[in-house]
Amino acid sequence: MSAQSTGRLIGVGTGPGDPELLTIKAVKALEKAEVVAYFAKQGKNGNGRGVVGDVLRTDVTLLPLYYPVTTEIDKNEADYKRQITDFYDASAEMVAAYLKDGKTVAVLSEGDPLFYGSYMHLHVRLADRYPTEVIPGVTAMSGCWSLAGLPMVQGDDVLSVLPGTMAEAELARRLGDTEAAVIMKVGRNLPKIRRALEAAGRLDEAIYVERGTMANGAMTPLAERGDAEAPYFSLILVPGWKDKP
Amino acid sequence: MSAQSTGRLIGVGTGPGDPELLTIKAVKALEKAEVVAYFAKQGKNGNGRGVVGDVLRTDVTLLPLYYPVTTEIDKNEADYKRQITDFYDASAEMVAAYLKDGKTVAVLSEGDPLFYGSYMHLHVRLADRYPTEVIPGVTAMSGCWSLAGLPMVQGDDVLSVLPGTMAEAELARRLGDTEAAVIMKVGRNLPKIRRALEAAGRLDEAIYVERGTMANGAMTPLAERGDAEAPYFSLILVPGWKDKP
Ligand SMILES: C[S@@+](CC[C@H](N)C(=O)[O-])C[C@H]1O[C@@H](n2cnc3c(N)ncnc32)[C@H](O)[C@@H]1O
Ligand SMILES: C[S@@+](CC[C@H](N)C(=O)[O-])C[C@H]1O[C@@H](n2cnc3c(N)ncnc32)[C@H](O)[C@@H]1O
Repeated sequence: MSAQSTGRLIGVGTGPGDPELLTIKAVKALEKAEVVAYFAKQGKNGNGRGVVGDVLRTDVTLLPLYYPVTTEIDKNEADYKRQITDFYDASAEMVAAYLKDGKTVAVLSEGDPLFYGSYMHLHVRLADRYPTEVIPGVTAMSGCWSLAGLPMVQGDDVLSVLPGTMAEAELARRLGDTEAAVIMKVGRNLPKIRRALEAAGRLDEAIYVERGTMANGAMTPLAERGDAEAPYFSLILVPGWKDKP
Repeated sequence: MSAQSTGRLIGVGTGPGDPELLTIKAVKALEKAEVVAYFAKQGKNGNGRGVVGDVLRTDVTLLPLYYPVTTEIDKNEADYKRQITDFYDASAEMVAAYLKDGKTVAVLSEGDPLFYGSYMHLHVRLADRYPTEVIPGVTAMSGCWSLAGLPMVQGDDVLSVLPGTMAEAELARRLGDTEAAVIMKVGRNLPKIRRALEAAGRLDEAIYVERGTMANGAMTPLAERGDAEAPYFSLILVPGWKDKP
């Protein structure tokens, strides 16, 4: 017999939260995977886990990849950057050990894997060393605007996807230079985002959605929501298509 | 017995082309739908039809909505605009007739319905008159960048979704003002898009994908592709995440 062949890395998009928004392809890959890896905070399950709970093999090996405790360190400090890079390097090697052993490793990724997904940190470290497949998923923004029944972009509209972490003036400038926008990573950036929307004259159109398509989801016009910190799973939609009938 | 209740309108995202990229929710809705409507060109089946062929009821009523023949008329002429508006009005009334009759009507929508989808023309005409649900789908761009294994956006990156129909200078300006971009609606705009990418200094990063996730899909660096007209199902990806490890 020849040497055992290596395993396969699969980045699996798990969609915005509702388990029925998994694709057939994702379900099939998860049903077969020998190892299922996912990023999570210490003491938490990782949201993807809940979504796929029912479809995994009974003998699956779960590989949680716990972020190092980093809340004490400023995100821009060199120390934080080194810690997190070391963590991704070590995580990739943990996954690689299973791949070398011929195992198929599915990595859960909320929404779509290559769209701001943490899976990407493994992908860039492993995809040129092992056979790799990425299964796209329904993004959080698609889940949220569908839930809201909000016509987002049509015809010649531009859509800008903007991280809420941006500087306020830059955010306002971009909001004034696009037909439609999605603002991700709201959290404690909410007051700043509100000011930027106001400066761009678009606050009245903005819809805030939290935990879209999850069991405890909610949405409201942003103008009617207070400035209390938003949960991790939240985003803001600014629809385009101005000349609709 | 009380009066018969009206039916339900469901915009169903059918994903980028691979039937396995339908969501479980979409499959369930299509298995139940009494009427399945879809936009198509005269003499064609409409791409969505192929994707969902296997899951429909045997007694389903198919409702193709054929675009009026419009190739002779310039898209910017008032005549074209009136013809197409009349067509969407008439299509909405055809769907409404089934809804009034208590039937559930699923409308097929390639990719995600509220993201440049033709379903939106029915949605804005019917959603305030009948119970309506939108089932999100995997977008064409997610299908294409996953196929290419291309890390698109991470961290604080901005993603700009740009229709290839835009003026060249405007396209170049926006390509120079974003970390990542997706250019939709390529078709005969390809030479213009290439010039805009060149002007923005981003031609070398651009990936051209046609019929992504469909059986006859293909991709190539845009710099290596000629200027021949692209098929309807094609787009261009310009990845972000410059400081990846
Ligand atoms: C690291 S990004 C991951 C995005 C994901 N890969 C996708 O395809 O949408 C996390 C951000 O996604 C957004 N998000 C994810 N799930 C969400 C949900 N169910 N409802 C609202 N926002 C969500 C939030 O803005 C959050 O800050
Ligand atoms: C009217 S828009 C519909 C977009 C769709 N609702 C979505 O969610 O992606 C049609 C455009 O989508 C793109 N497209 C759709 N399917 C595609 C595929 N399989 N491969 C490449 N491009 C595709 C093309 O750029 C085309 O011009």
